[in-house]
Amino acid sequence: MAEVATTRRSRITPEREAELYTAVLDILREVGYDALTMDAVATRTRSSKATLYRQWGSKPQLVVMALRCQKPLRIAEVDTGSLRGDFHVILNREDDCQMEQSSALMRGLAMAVHSDPELLRAFRELLVEPELAELDRIVRRAVERGEIRADNPALGFVPHMLIGAFVARELVDERPPTQAFLMTYVDSVILPALGV
Amino acid sequence: MAEVATTRRSRITPEREAELYTAVLDILREVGYDALTMDAVATRTRSSKATLYRQWGSKPQLVVMALRCQKPLRIAEVDTGSLRGDFHVILNREDDCQMEQSSALMRGLAMAVHSDPELLRAFRELLVEPELAELDRIVRRAVERGEIRADNPALGFVPHMLIGAFVARELVDERPPTQAFLMTYVDSVILPALGV
Repeated sequence: MAEVATTRRSRITPEREAELYTAVLDILREVGYDALTMDAVATRTRSSKATLYRQWGSKPQLVVMALRCQKPLRIAEVDTGSLRGDFHVILNREDDCQMEQSSALMRGLAMAVHSDPELLRAFRELLVEPELAELDRIVRRAVERGEIRADNPALGFVPHMLIGAFVARELVDERPPTQAFLMTYVDSVILPALGV
Repeated sequence: MAEVATTRRSRITPEREAELYTAVLDILREVGYDALTMDAVATRTRSSKATLYRQWGSKPQLVVMALRCQKPLRIAEVDTGSLRGDFHVILNREDDCQMEQSSALMRGLAMAVHSDPELLRAFRELLVEPELAELDRIVRRAVERGEIRADNPALGFVPHMLIGAFVARELVDERPPTQAFLMTYVDSVILPALGV
């Protein structure tokens, strides 16, 4: 599914694509996932519904791609030469305000996912799995550089540690995660568990 | 709020209380939080709605107390003499099947919380905060025994690490957390981060 979407998207310019994604996220913030319609996206962006379906296939795929592409930097592009440096860049991709906004969008989507198997599939295939693969590459490079021992038992748990920081910040501390909080968590939990 | 509820509850026998909580959780599993009514609980348990409101105050408080009290053992009762032993007992309070059932209930409640401030308040005051305080006491005892250094930077992040294991297991691995997974996570992430 990811490949098809990529091929399809190449038919429009990156600028137009960014414009469309911005409109989708605006509507998502305004009305939520369930009430977002392809009609509304078409009207707001002055495009035809046929174009939207041709480029993205379905509403779940369009919304998930919009969420994924809102980040100003992809994890795959990060390579500072140290694991701490890589985490620092990844966690500073968005400022605190952007991070709070995208957390709110993700929470909304995570709720919609429970009653919509097609959205769950798009969410996993187009967003979760690619990001996990990119994160894994960063950790593997740290192993190759000798920063982490290849047999460190925490190696497979980097996503769990990171996700815990985001989710539990809200639940435990009733505050949104900030760049400062996340870097403290990286230094206090993730790097020590990895023996860095 | 927690104190009021405790005082009220003392008017019925522990057996009757357990019976009521079981019925509440059965209904919760059957119809979800939104559709659960005090009428349905009253009918199922052959009690009057007046009794339910007198004992628990409201639907959110009754449901949260039912969720909290379903665990066969309270964290406060755990004291094995080692942090690893304490984690082991806490994570083995429920078998894998019970853990999957209570995760599903918690997920449902976590979704309802977003549109119900009274439920959010009951959830925090009657469930999250008491459990966090009990968990903190276990970690403090490990510091007093000399298992963890008092200045270990991961000390304040034990709940974040634990919650990450539960939430990310589903999201990353598409599998429910099991006792075996959680103990591996404790040994690979939590104890090393705490320097135990």
